[in-house]
Formats: sequence, structure tokens, C-alpha cells
Amino acid sequence: MIKEECGIFGIYSKNNKENSEPVYDVYNALLTLQHRGQVSAGIAVSKDGEVTDYCAGGLVSEVFPKSRLEDLASIKSPDMILGHVNNNTNFDGVHSQPLAMRYLKGSLTIASNGSLVNSYELKELLEKDGAIFQTDMDAEIIAYLIATKRIESSSVEEAIKKIMPLLQGSFSFVVMTPHKMIGVRDPLGMRPLSIGKVGDSYMISSESSTFDIIGGEFIRDVKPGEIFSIRPDNTESLVAMKSDKTAFCAFEYIYFSGQDSVLNGLSVHKFRYTAGQKLYEQSPIDADIVFGVPDSGIDAALGFSSVSGIPFELGFIKNKYIGRTLQDDELLLTQKAVKIKLCILKSVFKDKRVVLVDDSIVKGVTIKQLVELIKKAGAKEIHVRITSPPFKFPCYYGTDLGDPANFLYSKIGGDIKTVAKNIGADSVEYLSIETLKSISEKASVNICSACFDGNYPTKLPFKTEPDKYSVKLS
Amino acid sequence: MIKEECGIFGIYSKNNKENSEPVYDVYNALLTLQHRGQVSAGIAVSKDGEVTDYCAGGLVSEVFPKSRLEDLASIKSPDMILGHVNNNTNFDGVHSQPLAMRYLKGSLTIASNGSLVNSYELKELLEKDGAIFQTDMDAEIIAYLIATKRIESSSVEEAIKKIMPLLQGSFSFVVMTPHKMIGVRDPLGMRPLSIGKVGDSYMISSESSTFDIIGGEFIRDVKPGEIFSIRPDNTESLVAMKSDKTAFCAFEYIYFSGQDSVLNGLSVHKFRYTAGQKLYEQSPIDADIVFGVPDSGIDAALGFSSVSGIPFELGFIKNKYIGRTLQDDELLLTQKAVKIKLCILKSVFKDKRVVLVDDSIVKGVTIKQLVELIKKAGAKEIHVRITSPPFKFPCYYGTDLGDPANFLYSKIGGDIKTVAKNIGADSVEYLSIETLKSISEKASVNICSACFDGNYPTKLPFKTEPDKYSVKLS
Amino acid sequence: MIKEECGIFGIYSKNNKENSEPVYDVYNALLTLQHRGQVSAGIAVSKDGEVTDYCAGGLVSEVFPKSRLEDLASIKSPDMILGHVNNNTNFDGVHSQPLAMRYLKGSLTIASNGSLVNSYELKELLEKDGAIFQTDMDAEIIAYLIATKRIESSSVEEAIKKIMPLLQGSFSFVVMTPHKMIGVRDPLGMRPLSIGKVGDSYMISSESSTFDIIGGEFIRDVKPGEIFSIRPDNTESLVAMKSDKTAFCAFEYIYFSGQDSVLNGLSVHKFRYTAGQKLYEQSPIDADIVFGVPDSGIDAALGFSSVSGIPFELGFIKNKYIGRTLQDDELLLTQKAVKIKLCILKSVFKDKRVVLVDDSIVKGVTIKQLVELIKKAGAKEIHVRITSPPFKFPCYYGTDLGDPANFLYSKIGGDIKTVAKNIGADSVEYLSIETLKSISEKASVNICSACFDGNYPTKLPFKTEPDKYSVKLS
Amino acid sequence: MIKEECGIFGIYSKNNKENSEPVYDVYNALLTLQHRGQVSAGIAVSKDGEVTDYCAGGLVSEVFPKSRLEDLASIKSPDMILGHVNNNTNFDGVHSQPLAMRYLKGSLTIASNGSLVNSYELKELLEKDGAIFQTDMDAEIIAYLIATKRIESSSVEEAIKKIMPLLQGSFSFVVMTPHKMIGVRDPLGMRPLSIGKVGDSYMISSESSTFDIIGGEFIRDVKPGEIFSIRPDNTESLVAMKSDKTAFCAFEYIYFSGQDSVLNGLSVHKFRYTAGQKLYEQSPIDADIVFGVPDSGIDAALGFSSVSGIPFELGFIKNKYIGRTLQDDELLLTQKAVKIKLCILKSVFKDKRVVLVDDSIVKGVTIKQLVELIKKAGAKEIHVRITSPPFKFPCYYGTDLGDPANFLYSKIGGDIKTVAKNIGADSVEYLSIETLKSISEKASVNICSACFDGNYPTKLPFKTEPDKYSVKLS
Repeated sequence: MIKEECGIFGIYSKNNKENSEPVYDVYNALLTLQHRGQVSAGIAVSKDGEVTDYCAGGLVSEVFPKSRLEDLASIKSPDMILGHVNNNTNFDGVHSQPLAMRYLKGSLTIASNGSLVNSYELKELLEKDGAIFQTDMDAEIIAYLIATKRIESSSVEEAIKKIMPLLQGSFSFVVMTPHKMIGVRDPLGMRPLSIGKVGDSYMISSESSTFDIIGGEFIRDVKPGEIFSIRPDNTESLVAMKSDKTAFCAFEYIYFSGQDSVLNGLSVHKFRYTAGQKLYEQSPIDADIVFGVPDSGIDAALGFSSVSGIPFELGFIKNKYIGRTLQDDELLLTQKAVKIKLCILKSVFKDKRVVLVDDSIVKGVTIKQLVELIKKAGAKEIHVRITSPPFKFPCYYGTDLGDPANFLYSKIGGDIKTVAKNIGADSVEYLSIETLKSISEKASVNICSACFDGNYPTKLPFKTEPDKYSVKLS
Repeated sequence: MIKEECGIFGIYSKNNKENSEPVYDVYNALLTLQHRGQVSAGIAVSKDGEVTDYCAGGLVSEVFPKSRLEDLASIKSPDMILGHVNNNTNFDGVHSQPLAMRYLKGSLTIASNGSLVNSYELKELLEKDGAIFQTDMDAEIIAYLIATKRIESSSVEEAIKKIMPLLQGSFSFVVMTPHKMIGVRDPLGMRPLSIGKVGDSYMISSESSTFDIIGGEFIRDVKPGEIFSIRPDNTESLVAMKSDKTAFCAFEYIYFSGQDSVLNGLSVHKFRYTAGQKLYEQSPIDADIVFGVPDSGIDAALGFSSVSGIPFELGFIKNKYIGRTLQDDELLLTQKAVKIKLCILKSVFKDKRVVLVDDSIVKGVTIKQLVELIKKAGAKEIHVRITSPPFKFPCYYGTDLGDPANFLYSKIGGDIKTVAKNIGADSVEYLSIETLKSISEKASVNICSACFDGNYPTKLPFKTEPDKYSVKLS
Repeated sequence: MIKEECGIFGIYSKNNKENSEPVYDVYNALLTLQHRGQVSAGIAVSKDGEVTDYCAGGLVSEVFPKSRLEDLASIKSPDMILGHVNNNTNFDGVHSQPLAMRYLKGSLTIASNGSLVNSYELKELLEKDGAIFQTDMDAEIIAYLIATKRIESSSVEEAIKKIMPLLQGSFSFVVMTPHKMIGVRDPLGMRPLSIGKVGDSYMISSESSTFDIIGGEFIRDVKPGEIFSIRPDNTESLVAMKSDKTAFCAFEYIYFSGQDSVLNGLSVHKFRYTAGQKLYEQSPIDADIVFGVPDSGIDAALGFSSVSGIPFELGFIKNKYIGRTLQDDELLLTQKAVKIKLCILKSVFKDKRVVLVDDSIVKGVTIKQLVELIKKAGAKEIHVRITSPPFKFPCYYGTDLGDPANFLYSKIGGDIKTVAKNIGADSVEYLSIETLKSISEKASVNICSACFDGNYPTKLPFKTEPDKYSVKLS
Repeated sequence: MIKEECGIFGIYSKNNKENSEPVYDVYNALLTLQHRGQVSAGIAVSKDGEVTDYCAGGLVSEVFPKSRLEDLASIKSPDMILGHVNNNTNFDGVHSQPLAMRYLKGSLTIASNGSLVNSYELKELLEKDGAIFQTDMDAEIIAYLIATKRIESSSVEEAIKKIMPLLQGSFSFVVMTPHKMIGVRDPLGMRPLSIGKVGDSYMISSESSTFDIIGGEFIRDVKPGEIFSIRPDNTESLVAMKSDKTAFCAFEYIYFSGQDSVLNGLSVHKFRYTAGQKLYEQSPIDADIVFGVPDSGIDAALGFSSVSGIPFELGFIKNKYIGRTLQDDELLLTQKAVKIKLCILKSVFKDKRVVLVDDSIVKGVTIKQLVELIKKAGAKEIHVRITSPPFKFPCYYGTDLGDPANFLYSKIGGDIKTVAKNIGADSVEYLSIETLKSISEKASVNICSACFDGNYPTKLPFKTEPDKYSVKLS
């Protein structure tokens, strides 16, 4: 099953008694990570081994109105706090995280990001020993494995080390035990996880931008295969599992992550800006204006403008007030919907040769609408530039692209002229896989390009969910 | 105030395709059981082994507005449905039931009533094998044990039979597996569980009144220690565990259950009516009017009237519209609150010698307020009659009476004259334990009178929750 | 089903600075009046001429959660507070009361009960001078008329006196101006309005029971045609309009008002109890048990029992937890709905000759269901006794009985044997109009029996709403 | 009293039966106008003279969830629909618009934008004839005046013409009567109002961008002093009142209106872009990057970049998910709040000379925070450029700038060097009033610059609210 992205933020505030209400920092961090998951949100506060956990469906601001934040803030000087935003479509409380539980050694709280490809095999394995599963989240499997291995281990870190070879796929997770907060990243480093510090408090987060928000600073990424453990007196880094390769999701740079985050040493903004530059260099073109589809296309359009000398313009304005009701169903794929979401500045396009920069084309529905709107606004030529290679293969690591049979590029023959014709543009260019890799070279890890070239860094899921698992838990 | 028990209602509707929307029956049954739990509610629908479960904090009518019922009803011709009302104070979705999960053999859904005295020992036992607990409900422990024993058993019924010797305390529960609905009652029969039938559909319920509501009929009680299994083609009764004694909670008759239910062959109304008669016979008195504190005192007042010839009157009217907001905290113990909840008919009491019948006295706060109100209304004499013996010992089986140190009777010396003086009445009489037992003789089981005489039918909890369990899961 | 009336409660708390938070008293009073209107509720707090008003659709407990009450209570030492519960079917805030506005002399707040028969004529009259109407409530018309006449009057009381001849129909209303609270009752005294006192604070209320709740006492009724004005230093009674007849709504005694209220010197409980006695005397019968349909039938059943010697029993138990969702539509007229609302004590009816006392029969749907339920429970005979005469004519004064064409009695020929047959009973008796009047003789006013005998005390509405008024304001 | 902006959108859909659900168009138009008012929203649907109106506090998407839109859409083929977004701080339903009422000629619905300076005089005038006011909105006053004058007028247009000399201040409003939709703009043209057409349906809107959204086209502005009337068969333009001057609010261009709107023939984007260009020409400077504060500063930064050759950059990213809870109070003026709302791209600023373009400075709190953030990000120099002149005078026409005593520019002496020092910038430049006027010359009306130079185009309010008006209606 393909799951979408999530965001994690944890702070170990035990030593920093000056910041008496770190729960507000976690709230602000989750607002900053909201783009990684809008379906549910949760915050778990740990003090003296006692965990108070609140999770529910909705945006961070909906799940945590003032009164609820005040409730959590009434737990004075907490030892640590863990927050999560989720994109899982089972949007009620049970399927949201952090997942708090108790086990052999007391409380255990977990928040995870990514997707295991062998989740069903792991469940079967555990069930043969009597396990019961109350959710369909990977986090529950990981917690179970930790609990099972903890028996024969001298520490929770050792238990985590023992389970890592069992976990196939992408996973970054943070665990809170009564006295420790532990961040773990899979050996391939497929999903981001960063370490920061504010005052004396360590933080672990899916994105470094959260550290800025709180007034703290970025320390370093959790390394692929690393177990980073924060305790009252010290921190410890444990190389849990070595891999001779790394495979960081390219889409974190292209689309998922915030422009203001730095992942594996490479700024998201820088990546996109450079992608825009490379798109011009890869296929120079003469035009009057260049603009980007908000938000992720704008950095790239600026880069495109900087090397081409073609003036950057704002062509679309994003409506900030669109509710989620209509947007989510009927209107979603209609031109009207695109219009409402992106108000067009008609005067800007009149008689112009236009370069339109966007991050990706999946089914091509939105780009078609945009091109048509620009044409109606009087543009003479429209050249579409995409800051990613064409999608050809499904992702099994947490990016939900829908059915590969609907990928526009493959569907209409893998020819960019046909793509251009199909979407109504005068030309289309994708970023080549090579260019994508060259830009990513500045990162400390290699990228995963499986959805573009089919080179999957792990074995694939060989077993899908059997009938007996069809429990809709909610 | 005495906290109430939980309520369970299940229907095996697979064979009764005429009733295409049994979820509305379950909804109506839960409304009828609402007095057993007002904190949370849930309904789980099972079809072809797939379970759709919705639980949340709130009254049945709040948790299941029309739109949600329609959602559940859109699952056409379900095999079985299980509903639950809960009085657990952790009122969010996670701590409500039914608890749906998957295990070795597919889906497993459970709803329970009662209280295990050895829950912590059982948790420790399971944790030593790697178990994790996401809630603090007995239902989760029972599910775990079933899953663990299922491995070495040829059927789920056999697994349940194996775990029953492990469970100490009161427990009635209903389990749904992909093809069966199974009702289980503890060997002492401490909590009620009844079997009913509507058309071709079997039902299992905490109270028989639900069968009437739905237009069905009562078949029999699940017997103490019985596993009653409903399958597509037949039902099976398995004597899982024999006990030489039974100990049905007396308070089910005195206070918990609905007047229109028949438990163990004895009608709740009949019990209360007889208790009122016995109270007069036990201590005859001359008075002008007799009335009962709504709701449980009214049946008894009618009985008192029937043997004494003293006219029954309505003295108090219950306000149906009291919100739960204020009632639950500030106002609860004030005279104003009592007044708002029970409007007094002042004219009725003027210059009268009054017999006031109530079900029990715990701390004595409410009865004091009532006596004072009646005095203010001009009553000449007030004689309080209680349809239960005085509380002297704590209950470990699901009845939350608060701290025994606050029990009025013991606190002020165990003398009914002192009690009368304390609450401002001219006399007070409790039902004697002997009379209680004699009335209960008409039931097919013996009653548990532990809270009155300290004769606990099971061993007591020897271990309370250790520190490491202090996870507030929500 | 008979729709209920509105309820008003006002307190002039300026002089009683000890009670610093009278808004809680108003809340409690509105809870007590909730049976008079469940559609919307509102509270207006006046201090130094400034009015803070909150009204919305919903029950009192829904419209005023703790946080909102605290907001209103933050207005310290208010001069006066006016509350209202409404049964108007436009249930949003705009159509709820109190209606606060400003006019020539500052703030003007009004809450009313009743129904004007000439509302459209009055609107037309006002519109010819340029009036605009934002709601369809009589309260707005009355406020307009007061504002118009105030110009040429030396006081608001004088203005009210001037408009009273213009108002045709039933009306009780309370007005707050910056320095006064004024209670007004129509010359026929069709709706109730009482004066009470708590400490130094006067109160005006639709029902006297509210005074008890608050710990105050009943002073007297506002007299028909009286303007009762409360000011900082004194109160004033002004006979605004004399009428040679009075016509208090009989249904206030029979059904609307709380049993614990005393209206026009006659207790509602006493009225109903006597009606039960008279029903027996009017037509003696031999039977085994008598019981009443909750709530209004119970007092009468007790009365019936007292003279007949037939034992009173509880036969039905009202479910307190029914939500309003289903009840209000699909289920309303089905036997299932009746069953859910009124759980039957089957054992009570077995082989018995039963007298069933209810307050009224409109369309006969509910009584049919009840009779059938009792039969199914094994009753040998069922004798229905109704504490009101049969409905024959529509009410224009605020009691919504639905289309007279559907009144059971008239529809099937005005013969009680046919009625009995139709509803499945062995006999039916209605209270005669004469008996109704004789019971009411103990009240200080005559009763209106128009719905029974067609003797309307006012001229009838000769004009219904023209097309142009079809504004659904919400 | 100073009120904030509002947005109006009306469609006369009677002739366009193809568009059977125009209510969705109105919804989308209101989403597009949401920046003009986020406090409440409303939609009134008129069919055959019957008006269904729903207004409530909240964003458009909150007030109109899917179910409510469906309710309104169930009114098939409506004649006309009027929508409104409001920034009035009394955020409950009563103080939202459209305001629907009935008067002499049937239904009357009004939605307005702007602020009358003589509202209290008008109220007093009306009250002397017996008027009552249920809200404090100008729309109610205007409706009253129309109703009053309609008596002596042959048409509603004539009545509107008669009241226009009475209305002092800024006002654009749209009125629906049973058969007409009428748009009115004040003689000075202070607030915008445009006419559009989609299919055969005329539209009237505060901003032309809404016409694009719906797939229609802009026709022309309603002219200052014009009454534009749409009827089943034709439209009519009536010059209601001639003024020898016009005074369009400059802040509509600078800040209020959407970039994609064209007001009085001048595009908002073009205005801002030119303002950016002029700011450079007015005071050339050498720098490394220029960027704008989202959203209104971005167009201007692009203009600044286009003439200066200084590269445009994105420096801040607006967080789309900020809830309104915290933002609105505690956090609002803190650096943390600014940080959360505008995530900074730190890498962009490192060692750079930065030009920061914003639309205005009121108290200077936000700009101080931004400058500090940029400094912390390592900028060498920061030059602030403001696309408006400094505020010196209060606005009485609908722009709420707060207390003029707090205007930074005046407060610290009216010297831009002092301003720069105060906010921590290396330099500050405001747009001069002359430049502002020269840019606005391309519009068909003159601008109002009263808040900059004190030249008020109308007389000022000479009377503020007397004590007696202090009714908080809600």
C-alpha cells in the first residue's frame, strides 16, 4: 500500500527549564511541517515517564485550538514532547500519531515517516506469536518489534538495532521512552530527519526549517542507519546498520519539503533554483516572461530567469482561503477549480511568449488547465518546463502518485512533443535524470530515482494484504 | 454518586436479509442501554470479515448523528454488528469500544463489561512476551490473551475457554470474528448478558429490554461460565468454566439496570417493587404520603404504598434538559443543582408526614439536600427508606463508589439514628442484607453483596498499577 | 404533536449586589422553562443601558456552554438580565429572542410569548410609514409599535399602554429599557406571567417554578392587561387595558406548563390531579391498574387512582437519552419510536384491565401505538382517559395543533365509541368542557376553550401573509 | 466609528437558465473576495420574490460547508443571488450581511461596503420617527431610508436617488428587490463596484477578478453616483447624484484589492508594479537583491527589479496553514509570530545588500521584526521601500488604521532617517503623494489621499456615538 508523507517534530526539553512551555514550540513546528500532512495531527507530552497524548483528524490549527494547547501546556516542565502530522487517509484519532502505548519498560511513544515494503510479512510474523493490530500504521509494527526485542536487549537502542534488519523500505521515526528520545533513519536515508538545538534542548525534526521557527539552530542530519539517542545527561550516536548505498527521495527536494529547509546539506530552495537554471541550460529558449506555478515552481522560475535573462513575473496568485470541502472532490479537476486556486493576472500574459515552470506532471490534468488559462489570457507561445524527470514507475516508499497506468508521459508514448501537444503547449521539457543527479551531488546522500528509472533501492513488496486483513479500523 | 457500568449489544444479522439496515436497531438498542454508560459510544459493523468501527466520546445521539448512521447503514446486509456504551472517564475515541483489531485469523472485535481484578498481572505477563498496550481497557487484555491462545487452539471458542481461568473478576464480553459472534459471561455471572432473537437474527445484550425495543424476544441469559457462539448455520453453547458459586452484582437490580429488564429470571421492576414492600414490612410506619426519588426509587415507593396503604405521590419532577456542562462540576453537590435536577412539587408536602424512598446512600450529600428541600416545603415528618443495605466495603468489580472512607454509614458510626440525624430525617431504614438476599432468591443466580458485607467472591487485586504504567493514552 | 409555547425569565438585579452573578440564575431558570421551547435560546444582559445579547438555535445547554456563560458572567453586577426559550421553527440566531435593539431612548430589549392574530395588519400599518422587518416574530412588531408611540409619550409605560389596544391575540412580554424592566400581559390573560422576588431582586417569569429554583419566592401573577414596571427605586403597576372577560389558555394547565408551577393561583399539578379524579367520577370504571403517559398524564393517573382505589402503576419509562436527530423525522410516528421513547414494563400489564391516562388526542397516532404496545404486553382491557375535551377547532393563540382536518375526534365522526375502536381501546373518555371549566374555577381567571368549543375570545385573523412577505430570513 | 473593508458579489441569473446552480458561482466569487473580509460571510438567494438568506461568522469555507451550499442550491433556477464577506468585528450572524428584510413592497436585501460618516445623525433622524435598529451596520440605515422614501416614490431606484444626498461618506451597495438587482456607488466613487456578465447574466462585484473566476467578463465599473439597475428585460443606468470630484480609496490599489482586479480602468498589479518602479526612480540605490513582503509587496518588488536591474528573489515564504486562534492574540506582534507566518530563506540573505519592499507602515511592529530577521540571516544592508506615503491622518471611510497617535512616522518626528533607525534599516523610502497621484492618473477617477495629507473629500463625522447607543447586539 502506498502511503503519503508525514512530518515529525520532537524536543527533549528536560534540561531547559527556562522554556517552561515548549508545547507551543511543538505547535509552531507542526504548523511549519503542515505541508507534509494535512489529514491528522498529534502531540504527546512526556513527564516523569507519564505520557499525555492527543491526536485527531484535521489541520494542526483545528486539532489544537487554544484551549487544547493550554491543557497540554498545563503539564509544567515536561521532559520531552513529540508531535506529528499525517497524510494517512484514515483521518480519525486512532490512525493518527504519535502512537502512545505501554510495554515491558513503561511508556513507549512513536511517530514515524515513510513506508515499509514488508509490513504484511512483519505483521504475519508477529501475529504468529499472538500479536493484535489496532491500526494499519507502520508505527505500530515498529513499536511491536521494539517491544518484542526489548526483552532480550539491554537497552531500547539495542532493541532498535536488532529490528533494523527486519525493516524493509523507507522509515524515519522518533521514539520516546520514559527517559530518552531516540531518532532513527533507515540505512538508505530515504526520508529526512534532522537534529537541532535550542538553548539546552535537543530537537529532532523531519525538516530543519522548524529549528529556525523556534529560534534554535540546525546541528546536523541524522545519518542513514543511525540511531541518535538523547538522554538527560548526554546524547549517543549508534551506527545501527551500514548500507553501501543511500537513496534519499528526490521528491523531497522537488516537491515535498519546504523551500526553507536544508536536507543532507543541500537547501531545498537552492535545489529548485538550480533545477530552473539547468532547465534553461538543458534546452535554451527565447521568451518574454518566465513564471512558476506556486509554490514549488517559483524558486525554479527565478533560477530559470537568472541564467536566461528572461524576466520573472508573477502570473498566478494562490487563493489562500480555499476551503477543503469542495476542493477535495467535485471541483478538483475542473478548470474552475484551478482558476479559483490560482487567480491569473491576465494583463501579464497578453501577446507574450511565456515559460511556465512547474515541479512535475503526473496525469497532466492541472497543467492542461493552466496552459489553457494562459492561452485565453492572450499568450502567443507557452513553453512548459518541469523540474523533475517524467514519472514512469510506482513509488513504494511513501509517495502516492496514483496508478502508473495514468502517468501522462508513458500513457501517450514517452515523447515530449506528444506531451506538449496533449497539454496544449508549444514545447515541454523535463529535467533529465542525469541533471537531477548532478544537482543532488551537493547533498551528502545519493538520491532515489526509482519513480523515474525503476531502480528500486530495496526489494519490492512481494505480498499484498490478504483478505483477512480487511479491517477498517477507525 | 455511583458510576454506572458499560452496556453491550450485538446482533448476528447474516441470516435475516429482510432487515437490511440492522444498524438502526443497534442504535436504538444503545439508546436503551445509555443509562449504563454516557461517556463514549461505538458501533462496529462486520461484513465478509471486514470490520468498520466507529467509536467516540459522547452520548449515543452525539456520537451517531444521522449522517454517521447513514454511513454505517450504507454497508448493506452486514453479517453482524456490535455496539457499546462506556462509562470510562477517558472519553476520547481511543478508550471507547468496540475495540476492532486484526490478528492471526483476521478481524477480531470485542466489547466488554466488568472489571478484572488481575489486569496488571495479566499485562505484565503479556508484556514479558513483547506485548504493547494502547489503551487501559480490559477488552484489550482479553483480546491479547485470545490472540495468544488462538495459535495453539483449533477454534476461537477453544482459545476463549483456555483464557477463562486466567481472568479474575467480573467480565461479560462479546467477540466478533469473521464468521462468528460469541458472548461470554464470567463463571460467577457477576455482570448480566442476555440472548434474544428477532426474526432469524440472534442478539446478545447486557439487558433484555433492548430485545423488546427492536421488536424481538428474550430467549435466555448467557449462563455463568458459558461461551455462547452464533454462526451462520447454528449456535453452540460451551460450558467453559464451572464455578460452584455465583455472585451477580446486587446493584444491577438496585440501581444500574433499566426497570424494564429481566435479569436472571427476575424483573428489575419486580425486585425494586418488592424491596419497597419489604422496607415497609421490615419497619412499618404511619405516614401521609410516600414517594420515590426518580428514577430507581419510584418502583420501590409504589411497592411501599401497596402494602402500607400510604398513598403514593409524585414529589419531584426530573428536569430532562439539564446539560452536562455545569452539572458535572461546580453545581453538582449544591442544593441548587439538586433543585434544578429535581423540581419539587411544594404543595404536595405541606404539613405531611412523608416517606422518601431512594436506592442508596453513599456520601449522603444528595439525600441531605432532598430532605432539606422537603422540609422547606412544609413536611411535618420525613422518613427515609433505602432499598439497599449500607455500603461498607469497596467494589472491585466495576462499580465506582469512591473512597470507602467517605461512606456515610460507616463514617458516622454505623447507627441509623445517627444517620437520620445527620441527614436531617426523622428516621432512616436500610434494606437488610438478609432481605436483599431473600428478594434475590427468585433470580437464577446468587447475588454478590461484597460492598455490604465484605464477602468478596474472588481474590482481591494484590497489585496496583506500577509507575511505569502511567501513560495517559488519549 | 402539540408544539409548545415560549418561555420568558427576567431578573432585575441592580439592587441586589450580593448576587454578583445572576446570569447563572437566569441560565437555571431557562433550564427549568426548557419544556416551553427547545428550538432556540437567548440571554440579554443589561448594565448601565448597554445590552449584551446572545441568542442561537439549540437547547439552553447547547446555546450556553460553560465558556459562554462565563463570558456573560464577566459583566459584573449587571442591572438586569432577560432570558428566553423559543419554539419557533426558524432556529438560527436571528429568529431567537431576546431581541435587542436601540431606539429613540437608547437600548430596548424584548422577549415575548404568545401569538398576535393581527400581525400582518400591524406590519402593513407600520410599513406604510417606512418600517422594515428583519424577522417574523411578534416581538419585532411590538418593539416597533413601542418605538413609534414612544415619541409622543412621556414614558415607555405610557407608550406600551397606547399600543395595547392595537395588539389582538395572546401576548405576554418583558421589555428592558436602560433603567426599567417591564412585564406586560394581554387583557385576556391568555398566557401566564408571574412576578417573583429573590433577595432584593424582582423577577418576571412565564412560570412560577423558576422562582423556587433560584431560591426566591412567588409574589403574584401579572394581571391581565397589567403593565408591571420594575425600576431602581420602586415598582409600579399600571392597569393598561381593562377587559370584561379573561381567557387563559387551558392547555397551559393540561400540557404546556411544568407540574410544579402555580398559574393564576391554581397549581398545575393540582389541576391535573383533579382532572384525573373527575375523569373517574364522570365515568366510573372497574379496572386492575391505572397509569399515566409521562409526563403530563402521571399526575392525572394519581388522581384517578385516589378516587377509584385502582392501584397506580408505572407502565412506561421515558428514555432520557433520545437524541433529537432521528426522533424528529423518520422515526417519529412509528411504533418503534414510541417504544424507544417509552419503554414498557411488560410484566405489569399481563392479564390486567388497564386504565391509561393521557393529556390529549390530536391525530391519534401516538395513542394508537401505546394501546397496541399494551395489548401486546397482555392486557385484557384498555380504557383510555383523556384529561382534555376533544379538539375541534384550530388555535390562533400560539398552540400549534396542525391541520384541524386531521383531528381524530372530528375526523371519525365525533363519537367516542368510534374513537375507541379506531385506537384499539375498549373505551375512551374525554374530560367534558364543563368539567374542565369547573376545575379551572379555582384559578383567578377564566379559561380559553376555543380549540374545544370554537368560542374564540378575540376576532380572528382575517388576513394571512400575502406573497410579498415570503422572505425566509435566517 | 471606523469599519474595515467588505466584499460584495451579486448575480442576476433569471435569464440564464442554463446555469442552474449559480450559487456555486457566488461561493467561488466570495472565496475570491475573501481577502476583503474574513469575519463573516453570507449568501441570499431570491426566487419569485422569496429570499433565503444565510449569514454567519467565519471564513466563506466555514460558513458554507458542502451541506449548506447544497441546501441553497436546492432552490432551483433562482432569479438572483447576493453574497457578502465582512470584516466587522461583531462576528455573529446578526452582524453579517446580506441583510434580508421585508418592507412595503415585499422583500428587500442589501449588502454594502464602505463607511458612512453621518451614520449617527441618520439614526437619530430615523429614530425620531420611531425607527428601531437591530444592528450597527450602515446597511440597515440605508435599507431604512430606502423603505421610508419608497412610500413617496414611484420606484425603488427613485427612492435610492432621493436618499443619496443624505448619505455622507463611502458607500457601495447592492440591493435586491423581488424583481431587480441594483448596484449603487457613492458620488465620490470611494469604494469599487464593477459590472460583469456571464452568459446572459449580469453580475455586480466589489472586484472584477470575480468575473474571471466564474468564466464571465468585465463590462465596466459602476460610475460614481450611478444607480445601475438590472431587471428581467433590461438594465438601466441612472445618474443619481453628480459630484464635481471623485475620491477613490488609494489603499484599494496599495493593499486591499486582489492583484488580479482592474479598478477604474487601472490594474492593481500594474499599480503596484509601477509603484515599485517609481520607488527606485524616486531614490535609486545599489543593492544585491530585492524582494517583497507577501503578498502586496511582491508585485512592487518585481517592478523595482525591472528598472533597477537588481535581481528579484523570494526571501520569505508565507505559511498557508496558520490557524486563526493564536495568530489573533498573543503571538500576533511577536517575532515568533512573524517567523511562523513568513518563513525566511536564510541562505538568500547571507552577506547581501537587500531591498525590502512592503506596502505600508502603520505602527511599524511587523517591519521591525522583518528587518531583524533579515539581519540575523546575515544581510549586510537593508533598504526598506514602502509603496505608500506615510500615514498621518485617520481614515473615516472604512479603513481601520487604529489610533493615529500610534502611526510610526508622525510619532517619531516625520523624518525618514529616524524611521530607518527606529526599525533597524539602513534606509527607508516612502512613495511620495505626488508619485502616488501620478500613478493613479491612469485610473478613471481621482484618488482619496486623506490618510496621507488630511484632505478629506467629505465633511467629517461631527458626532460620535452617544451613550444610549451602547447596545452590543449579537
